[in-house]
Amino acid sequence: MQPRSFIAVDWGTTALRAYLCNQAGQALATIKINAGIQSRQGAFEETLREAIAGLSTDGAAPVLMAGMIGSRQGWREAAYVETPCDVARLALHLTDVPNGLGRTIAIVPGLADLSGPAPDVMRGEETQLLGLLQRQNRRFATVCMPGTHCKWVHMSATEILGFQTFMTGEMFQLLCDHSILSRLMAPTAGGAAGPAFDRGLDMAGTSGALLHQLFSARTLCLFDRLPAADIRSYLSGMLIGHEVRAAAASIRGPVALVGERRLTAFYERALARLGIAQERIDEDIVVEGLAIIARAAGFV
Amino acid sequence: MQPRSFIAVDWGTTALRAYLCNQAGQALATIKINAGIQSRQGAFEETLREAIAGLSTDGAAPVLMAGMIGSRQGWREAAYVETPCDVARLALHLTDVPNGLGRTIAIVPGLADLSGPAPDVMRGEETQLLGLLQRQNRRFATVCMPGTHCKWVHMSATEILGFQTFMTGEMFQLLCDHSILSRLMAPTAGGAAGPAFDRGLDMAGTSGALLHQLFSARTLCLFDRLPAADIRSYLSGMLIGHEVRAAAASIRGPVALVGERRLTAFYERALARLGIAQERIDEDIVVEGLAIIARAAGFV
Repeated sequence: MQPRSFIAVDWGTTALRAYLCNQAGQALATIKINAGIQSRQGAFEETLREAIAGLSTDGAAPVLMAGMIGSRQGWREAAYVETPCDVARLALHLTDVPNGLGRTIAIVPGLADLSGPAPDVMRGEETQLLGLLQRQNRRFATVCMPGTHCKWVHMSATEILGFQTFMTGEMFQLLCDHSILSRLMAPTAGGAAGPAFDRGLDMAGTSGALLHQLFSARTLCLFDRLPAADIRSYLSGMLIGHEVRAAAASIRGPVALVGERRLTAFYERALARLGIAQERIDEDIVVEGLAIIARAAGFV
Repeated sequence: MQPRSFIAVDWGTTALRAYLCNQAGQALATIKINAGIQSRQGAFEETLREAIAGLSTDGAAPVLMAGMIGSRQGWREAAYVETPCDVARLALHLTDVPNGLGRTIAIVPGLADLSGPAPDVMRGEETQLLGLLQRQNRRFATVCMPGTHCKWVHMSATEILGFQTFMTGEMFQLLCDHSILSRLMAPTAGGAAGPAFDRGLDMAGTSGALLHQLFSARTLCLFDRLPAADIRSYLSGMLIGHEVRAAAASIRGPVALVGERRLTAFYERALARLGIAQERIDEDIVVEGLAIIARAAGFV
């Protein structure tokens, strides 16, 4: 007899989210623990036991996990599957995790795009994307997933066709925390998707290279043409502007924006300013993604 | 009676170099003190007194200084002069520094290029460039000055016409010291202008944006296609590749490379690989630059 419920786990670098789901993929109970793979090295089984206990479930439900828990630094490495990729292909390549919890535990593979001059990879986003394919009434050919390493993805009606990663978020943080520009910044001013962000976006549209344009955050300040409180937003606009302009050439149709509102707000503004249609999607589609993989793999 | 000697001072962020020069600009004595403007805030006069004492000179020679000592964080701000600019124009805009050392002390202004969408600035390099104009037998229309913030300069036979700054060196350091890539790097491996550097250069020539290509340093490692010991060199090649390709469109004739050999070696290799002729010039042309400004200003 098939179990009637399973436990979906989204386990990333900084946090673990577990969901007790029925066959239809509806979450009956949820728990979040600030126990990312970095802080729980060597204690993954204990951490998962803790999460499951928090869901107050019986002892039988299998566990399906996605995210960095399947990386080389995770519990067990789940080898990458190549694009193009659909649900069936991911479900065929689950990695079993031997464990002392008395239940089936498996990890969804990451995805690799080997079509470019260097490989590109994702882990966790592939599961969100399958959830998006499942949920949406109309299809998106292009998906943008903002984050430390933002993903731009091309989709068909059934498959993840290919993708590119941009280190935009990480570069922004490096410049804010450690660069010569950080010394000019007003300490309390966070970036905002406002007029200074737009100035950065527009600067990205001029002919200069990014490595040159970055220096303008300093010189505009020096010539009193950019307030210190605006530097963060200006830099954010410049970086996202370069990213979106590079991605724009291959955008087809409206862009699905997947992620926290705090981040997607910047991309919404950038896309709007470039005249590109868009729609925001909640990032919790990862649960729906895990549910369809669980069904395809015969877990429920 | 004109003094027959003067003291040339190149005072930057991390060090001070002072030269006792004759009217012809030949250095009769030299001293270097690791006393950049950052570490000697509020003690500039004392530091200069120490440097002059080290040169064993008499009490009369005037002092002409260039570099960050004229910045807002320096001894006294020396306002920027706009491009295009020749020796006479710089000599007309020296900033006097009132002092208790009983001698004339002046600072060479920095240079601002206001022709682009944002201002660009240099401080110290303008004096090297005038030294280069003075020294060279044949003229260079394009000068590249590698550093934390690399300058690409356009010159006529008598003037600095305009320039662009690239934050390449700083970006490289940020990525090596603080990014996710730094965790992959072999701790002892410094960058080298070798085959891994060339791979980065060639990657910069593919169609991807820099923010995307940076991620390849991670994925190539992940797929065992780039050894950890090569990441630094690969990144260096990619960043310099983006810079040189952006600058290449406006290069006219062979490029004069001004700077420390440790740095110029990378640019020499990048330019050679792109088929751009070049010649290396010692950075000590700053003394010759200070000498011609000192003569033009009537200091000697």
